[in-house]
Amino acid sequence: MDIAIPLFPGITALDAIGPYEVLSRLPAARVRFVAIEAGPYRTDNKQLTLIADEPLSAVPHPEIVVVPGGFGTRALLSPNPLLDWVRAAHETTRWTTSVCTGSLVLGAAGLLRGLEATTHWAAMEQLAAFGARPTSRRVVEQGKIITAAGVSSGIDMALTLAARVAGDEMAQAIQLGIEYDPEPPFSSGAPHKAPAHVLELARQRTRARSDAEALRG
Amino acid sequence: MDIAIPLFPGITALDAIGPYEVLSRLPAARVRFVAIEAGPYRTDNKQLTLIADEPLSAVPHPEIVVVPGGFGTRALLSPNPLLDWVRAAHETTRWTTSVCTGSLVLGAAGLLRGLEATTHWAAMEQLAAFGARPTSRRVVEQGKIITAAGVSSGIDMALTLAARVAGDEMAQAIQLGIEYDPEPPFSSGAPHKAPAHVLELARQRTRARSDAEALRG
Repeated sequence: MDIAIPLFPGITALDAIGPYEVLSRLPAARVRFVAIEAGPYRTDNKQLTLIADEPLSAVPHPEIVVVPGGFGTRALLSPNPLLDWVRAAHETTRWTTSVCTGSLVLGAAGLLRGLEATTHWAAMEQLAAFGARPTSRRVVEQGKIITAAGVSSGIDMALTLAARVAGDEMAQAIQLGIEYDPEPPFSSGAPHKAPAHVLELARQRTRARSDAEALRG
Repeated sequence: MDIAIPLFPGITALDAIGPYEVLSRLPAARVRFVAIEAGPYRTDNKQLTLIADEPLSAVPHPEIVVVPGGFGTRALLSPNPLLDWVRAAHETTRWTTSVCTGSLVLGAAGLLRGLEATTHWAAMEQLAAFGARPTSRRVVEQGKIITAAGVSSGIDMALTLAARVAGDEMAQAIQLGIEYDPEPPFSSGAPHKAPAHVLELARQRTRARSDAEALRG
């Protein structure tokens, strides 16, 4: 079972690695990291390099697609080979999924029109621009399209997907394998839970990161 | 603030990327992926390559060390340059941490004697062999050493550490930035929570993965 995860410059690593860590444990799964061109891709903060082993063209018909997010998605929302690949692959996938602002790529490919979908809480308005109906649920299933909220939500999305693909027992065994029994030291992981001053600080930081990324080009 | 994360063949990617995603967002943080030799490292399942940008010798005095786990740690428990580096770096770190079987590396370096520590639930007995006192808490602080349980627990560990380094408000803003408001679809992320048949399946799968890794050398 081929599971394709496209990489690109400015990707947020955990968006990709969370689902990879879950889905690679499905029986007979082969996760394939792909990109417009095979090679090294630097993440959003420029502190890590992930390798895309193959070009998109090597994996035209994956059973599962997971599109990660990151500030780098901004450069992928106008016509480009990744959008063409996503659109074509979606015709034969069993599941087409995204994490964080990866859903903007699905939207730009025209896959979300009229559908409920989610993304990082700071990007909800952009999602609506692609004809999607934004919702703040953490994992949103619409037929074979599953979108997940920001960054870490890809783990929850992938476990949900693992259950659809291989049954609840296998998904539970994978959850135990990665010891996913979360104990966040704070309760501030969503805008409606965080204290107001924390939400404001997070907004400032998101804008600063976004501006820095824009300046770097 | 230098944060060093050593890579090695057979690493479990999420062990490293969970903490990286949190700690790289600390003010003035510079996460540096290092290894005995700089270059590409293939993960435990051979489906992903991460790049170590620098050799261990380039980062002798990081403020924070995060040692990830994976089946590849097995080859690192007898004398080798990584253990020497961990032992020397620990003399000047502010925090020395591990995720999953990364704690076995700390143990082999002689850092855990007499201390409470944790690791992946399937590796608890090995931890005791290094003179540590195994505990099943998810994040275990002992002075400046923090060990975390299996794979995904590195996110919780890193948020705990972020609060120690930069205060609760910054840690909460980082949690919101990565939208870490976990909603696992099942409650089977720890051995005492999983149904008995799921625990047995997970044990079988861990043994099979371990055997496959041993066969691959």
